[in-house]
Amino acid sequence: MRNDGRAANQARPVKITTNYNKHAEGSVLIEVGDTKVICTATVEDRVPPFMKGQGKGWITAEYSMLPRATAVRNQRESAKGKLGGRTMEIQRLIGRALRSVVHLEALGERSVTLDCDVIQADGGTRTTSITGAFVAMAIAIDKLARDKHLSRYPITDFLGSISVGIIQNKALLDLNYEEDSKAMVDMNVVMTGAGKFVEVQGTGEEAPFSRQELDELLALAESGIASMIAEQEQALGPIADRIRGAAGAAARI
Amino acid sequence: MRNDGRAANQARPVKITTNYNKHAEGSVLIEVGDTKVICTATVEDRVPPFMKGQGKGWITAEYSMLPRATAVRNQRESAKGKLGGRTMEIQRLIGRALRSVVHLEALGERSVTLDCDVIQADGGTRTTSITGAFVAMAIAIDKLARDKHLSRYPITDFLGSISVGIIQNKALLDLNYEEDSKAMVDMNVVMTGAGKFVEVQGTGEEAPFSRQELDELLALAESGIASMIAEQEQALGPIADRIRGAAGAAARI
Amino acid sequence: MRNDGRAANQARPVKITTNYNKHAEGSVLIEVGDTKVICTATVEDRVPPFMKGQGKGWITAEYSMLPRATAVRNQRESAKGKLGGRTMEIQRLIGRALRSVVHLEALGERSVTLDCDVIQADGGTRTTSITGAFVAMAIAIDKLARDKHLSRYPITDFLGSISVGIIQNKALLDLNYEEDSKAMVDMNVVMTGAGKFVEVQGTGEEAPFSRQELDELLALAESGIASMIAEQEQALGPIADRIRGAAGAAARI
Amino acid sequence: MRNDGRAANQARPVKITTNYNKHAEGSVLIEVGDTKVICTATVEDRVPPFMKGQGKGWITAEYSMLPRATAVRNQRESAKGKLGGRTMEIQRLIGRALRSVVHLEALGERSVTLDCDVIQADGGTRTTSITGAFVAMAIAIDKLARDKHLSRYPITDFLGSISVGIIQNKALLDLNYEEDSKAMVDMNVVMTGAGKFVEVQGTGEEAPFSRQELDELLALAESGIASMIAEQEQALGPIADRIRGAAGAAARI
Amino acid sequence: MRNDGRAANQARPVKITTNYNKHAEGSVLIEVGDTKVICTATVEDRVPPFMKGQGKGWITAEYSMLPRATAVRNQRESAKGKLGGRTMEIQRLIGRALRSVVHLEALGERSVTLDCDVIQADGGTRTTSITGAFVAMAIAIDKLARDKHLSRYPITDFLGSISVGIIQNKALLDLNYEEDSKAMVDMNVVMTGAGKFVEVQGTGEEAPFSRQELDELLALAESGIASMIAEQEQALGPIADRIRGAAGAAARI
Amino acid sequence: MRNDGRAANQARPVKITTNYNKHAEGSVLIEVGDTKVICTATVEDRVPPFMKGQGKGWITAEYSMLPRATAVRNQRESAKGKLGGRTMEIQRLIGRALRSVVHLEALGERSVTLDCDVIQADGGTRTTSITGAFVAMAIAIDKLARDKHLSRYPITDFLGSISVGIIQNKALLDLNYEEDSKAMVDMNVVMTGAGKFVEVQGTGEEAPFSRQELDELLALAESGIASMIAEQEQALGPIADRIRGAAGAAARI
Repeated sequence: MRNDGRAANQARPVKITTNYNKHAEGSVLIEVGDTKVICTATVEDRVPPFMKGQGKGWITAEYSMLPRATAVRNQRESAKGKLGGRTMEIQRLIGRALRSVVHLEALGERSVTLDCDVIQADGGTRTTSITGAFVAMAIAIDKLARDKHLSRYPITDFLGSISVGIIQNKALLDLNYEEDSKAMVDMNVVMTGAGKFVEVQGTGEEAPFSRQELDELLALAESGIASMIAEQEQALGPIADRIRGAAGAAARI
Repeated sequence: MRNDGRAANQARPVKITTNYNKHAEGSVLIEVGDTKVICTATVEDRVPPFMKGQGKGWITAEYSMLPRATAVRNQRESAKGKLGGRTMEIQRLIGRALRSVVHLEALGERSVTLDCDVIQADGGTRTTSITGAFVAMAIAIDKLARDKHLSRYPITDFLGSISVGIIQNKALLDLNYEEDSKAMVDMNVVMTGAGKFVEVQGTGEEAPFSRQELDELLALAESGIASMIAEQEQALGPIADRIRGAAGAAARI
Repeated sequence: MRNDGRAANQARPVKITTNYNKHAEGSVLIEVGDTKVICTATVEDRVPPFMKGQGKGWITAEYSMLPRATAVRNQRESAKGKLGGRTMEIQRLIGRALRSVVHLEALGERSVTLDCDVIQADGGTRTTSITGAFVAMAIAIDKLARDKHLSRYPITDFLGSISVGIIQNKALLDLNYEEDSKAMVDMNVVMTGAGKFVEVQGTGEEAPFSRQELDELLALAESGIASMIAEQEQALGPIADRIRGAAGAAARI
Repeated sequence: MRNDGRAANQARPVKITTNYNKHAEGSVLIEVGDTKVICTATVEDRVPPFMKGQGKGWITAEYSMLPRATAVRNQRESAKGKLGGRTMEIQRLIGRALRSVVHLEALGERSVTLDCDVIQADGGTRTTSITGAFVAMAIAIDKLARDKHLSRYPITDFLGSISVGIIQNKALLDLNYEEDSKAMVDMNVVMTGAGKFVEVQGTGEEAPFSRQELDELLALAESGIASMIAEQEQALGPIADRIRGAAGAAARI
Repeated sequence: MRNDGRAANQARPVKITTNYNKHAEGSVLIEVGDTKVICTATVEDRVPPFMKGQGKGWITAEYSMLPRATAVRNQRESAKGKLGGRTMEIQRLIGRALRSVVHLEALGERSVTLDCDVIQADGGTRTTSITGAFVAMAIAIDKLARDKHLSRYPITDFLGSISVGIIQNKALLDLNYEEDSKAMVDMNVVMTGAGKFVEVQGTGEEAPFSRQELDELLALAESGIASMIAEQEQALGPIADRIRGAAGAAARI
Repeated sequence: MRNDGRAANQARPVKITTNYNKHAEGSVLIEVGDTKVICTATVEDRVPPFMKGQGKGWITAEYSMLPRATAVRNQRESAKGKLGGRTMEIQRLIGRALRSVVHLEALGERSVTLDCDVIQADGGTRTTSITGAFVAMAIAIDKLARDKHLSRYPITDFLGSISVGIIQNKALLDLNYEEDSKAMVDMNVVMTGAGKFVEVQGTGEEAPFSRQELDELLALAESGIASMIAEQEQALGPIADRIRGAAGAAARI
């Protein structure tokens, strides 16, 4: 029995509140258990210098935690004057993952910036950010697709993410903070609606893991991500239909 | 008639949700119109180096806006690598204002850090931060006072803040963003429950103002702050009683 | 009796040495008691990016103290690698105040940068900087007006500044350092030659102040600033005449 | 046929020159094809602040590329004034991987810093750094174990790393730079001498990958890492015997 | 004939105003032609970490130019967030030069920081800073020697500095800015009262120089520094006598 | 007898390995005793902003030490977030020295960046960098001259550098680290193939030096640099012939 009473293969309750912010082109407040993240999508009619003139768009992400998102207050990176390695690693991961389900040529020379701000943390902030950011991005890009009559619908599939890990030789789905700090192996997985892998990041700093353990973890992640994507579909409503349509079209190519 | 239909001397609706964050010693989500700020209070059993060995506590504040709190996305100060002048000015103001209603000796060598994070901005973010941070701080210090049996209740009075300004020769209370950007004179005022001034910051960059205009603005601010403090009292419930008790005792000294 | 023998409403002696620097378009050494500030005005034929293409000029200021301007050596901000909050607050104040008496359209797309470097500090460095920077700016802009035959004289009025405060329940004009460190209430005021307010920044961190105290402080400041402006007029000679002419014309509009 | 004539499952030639630096406690120049990295191990009798007083040691790594390690000169991070996200991500990975095969209690309160400086890059710099850093670390810790008569031999197993990827639907081992830039899926794997996983980092930014593709990549990596570890054993000579002894003892526990 | 009418071997007029700053332990305003530098000496009862516990003192220097010390305004290094290479080079030179004439053991564990702030520049700012800083330092250390009854007088000799250079094949003493920008060879020399070299820094970026030219430049510098030291002696009055006494004693050892 | 058995006027063995790096336009590994430096030359078809539009090229240098180039590990400047004064001083010196033997007009609007990375240090790293960087630069520029048919061969002479110093009143050539740390006087000299001085940087922080000592040091440096240049000629082979040709032509002008 886990510390919050869940079964090993049971994810925490998910709540996605769309249009949480009145200014952003897309936004959500996503809650996975006690982890709460505000994700906003900003669309701009320009791309970063290294992308100019290629006729393609760009998707990027930034991640931050409010100082008191955690049990002990953490110092602001703005006050430190630099981003930490963990932050950089996470925001690179989020951006990379989201780009995998967007057809950048279809976007045109536009960029979408996803800001993921953790207002309360209880484990799984990076996977929750990916799941939430996908919804904020979908809202923003769908609006763009409708307004600008893009040649092709840019979103090619859904994208969800969850963490898995091993505690006392037992594989568990969706670790909360207390579990995460005791895990011997920790893995973050990102998958598409079609059930393909986009990111697999497993680390056994405390104890190397066998191939069999890896297989168990991947199976857990697969089922967890499917339920995350079901939540996204429900939150997106008619937008989900358009994504499914585009994904089906893509699959037929 | 103002752009949102208010009277000149009418403040926007206020909503204070206490204990918004499960980790912090005190926290609120404060909403003044469409301006929304999360304020958390962190208590630590140490003071900054310059305060050590004086037997006194310290109150300090940090202020930040989420990138998409505003209509146009603003770059994170953590990514820029430094705090801007506006941020520094605001967090110095918040800290200074809050210290004016806390008896630092009574705190002992402890510090309280107020983090004010604007999640949506529509004018008056600094005054809203002060009003909200007071409530978060009061919750945290009240808990401390009950747990540690301090020699004296450290909070000496309520503290509220509001902005006032002049648009087209008319003094207005509680400017929203659209009004703020058209104001010729802009003033932020902080006052105590006893009706005394803690901060008066008026600026007439667009047009210098007369003594009579200053008097009008101060009168508007006085009434607006009184209503802010009424909201604080309601949000704080029994804690408000203890503050009133301490304020009364202080007044009798 | 004050620690240097002055009456409560008596400012310290002022000395303004114009053209103190051979390179700058305008410059002064201003001494108010033992506080000494070098102010230089630099005119450039360009404006910052955010002002481009508006056909208007810009006025900005920078403020710094030499490390040993103070009794205890303070570390250089260049060595720390960043500007402190106090510095940013002061230089924003100086720039804002000066802009209030310049007609930016009349300047054309030019910028004037005022550098205020405190070479010895004894209280009132920000107000002294404003009073001195106005004179340096006036010299530089007057030269510009004569050389470039601007459509309109850009300076619309004089601008002076002084500090006031309350020590032991007594309102005092022009605090020196020792007084400043004992003050319960501290206020910096900036006014025009026409007697209008440009900035009122009062803070009662040590003790909130009543409306009556505020009124007393404003009255003291008003008389002190009038004498500062009289010094400016004398230092500027014929330039002062041209400013008075322009101010009169502006008032008649 | 690959661009350098290798078979799909063939790694590039490896050369490990030990004791490449006269000052460091352990050092190698490792060459994997045209990728060349200098790895030095520095032993210090102290641990970082967050590890103090736990009676345990610490292993950490830093990674850098010389500006002209690459075809196009890259700007120094020292000149930019900050470490990039890629650098941080890599050095966090190296340190984490190495710690997985060191018994930190056995080290005592000592730290080992691995500096991995890429002097020429042709793909696989992070995996080459891990393989080389393990050897430099082993030399340094072995010396320590012999000098200080530690209670237990701190190295618990060998540790090797290699990259794998998918190009034109074909899984390939040990990508060079040209291959890496064309890969749809890219994966870095770190394994122990006992054949367990320490890190699995797969990313399909260009094209999500199926479970079957993942399995193929893992199999390739497993064989490639075994040959990397064989090179380590040969380079380490008698030290390799002691590691094998310790690994055997650990396995029996 | 030079652009200001001087002979090739003629230095510019020198003026040293001692005790220019009321707070510093020693201070001067030194003017060499139109180059003006404020030098202050700060004495502190501690040494930097790398000097602790050696029973010796330390002398260090910082150098800066006001933004408008030059014909074109230069951006503040505090605003840039870092010190430039030229500034670092100069402050390292000043500190090193001054340490050569101070007996650090005699100082005890104290440090003297020399701040050299150029308020107007017209060539030779680094050599003028050295000459001026020596006087400020001498005033501060002499006071210390009298107050603390040090075992030995810490200053072992005078120290002066001047620039020389070659313009159109002609060696010139004490270049002003216009000359400096046209010089093919530029050399800064620091010497003691006893006529020994402390620093010789010659550079022929524009044109390499022969041994004969080097000899000519050194001869010019020697005569120029002797006159700088004569100015120091006059400015220091009775302190100069004590330095001469100590220098004589040192020479006899 | 010196600590490594050399005579006072004997330099350490020199080894120059050209084309050490496969990517750079020119590169060497230079070894002077145990000091080892990788120098690479990067040619780019652009110049820094301050050189634009002058029809001239630019030569610049960067210098760095690997953390464990030294007996005690030194922290990376990239991790500190800024370049130290010593680094800046050295890279300014290298760039300035190299520019003295290049005809910048002949280069056209191109820049050559010399990266000097010390992989092992044992004294004389800056002089070794200059000697090695000249060879890397010569390879790169010679290639340019052959490819682009420049109007004139841009390299005007050879350039070598060596250190000299005084230990126990004895002048010594080419100090190693142990000698360097005991030297009373330390001098770095850069000379051309024609025997002219480009840089003379002598410092007597520990003990001022006489004119006679200076002469002795310069004579030693002259002979040492001649042998360094002989090594350059041998390493450069036919390129050396072309430089000699160009130098002869320049001398005849």
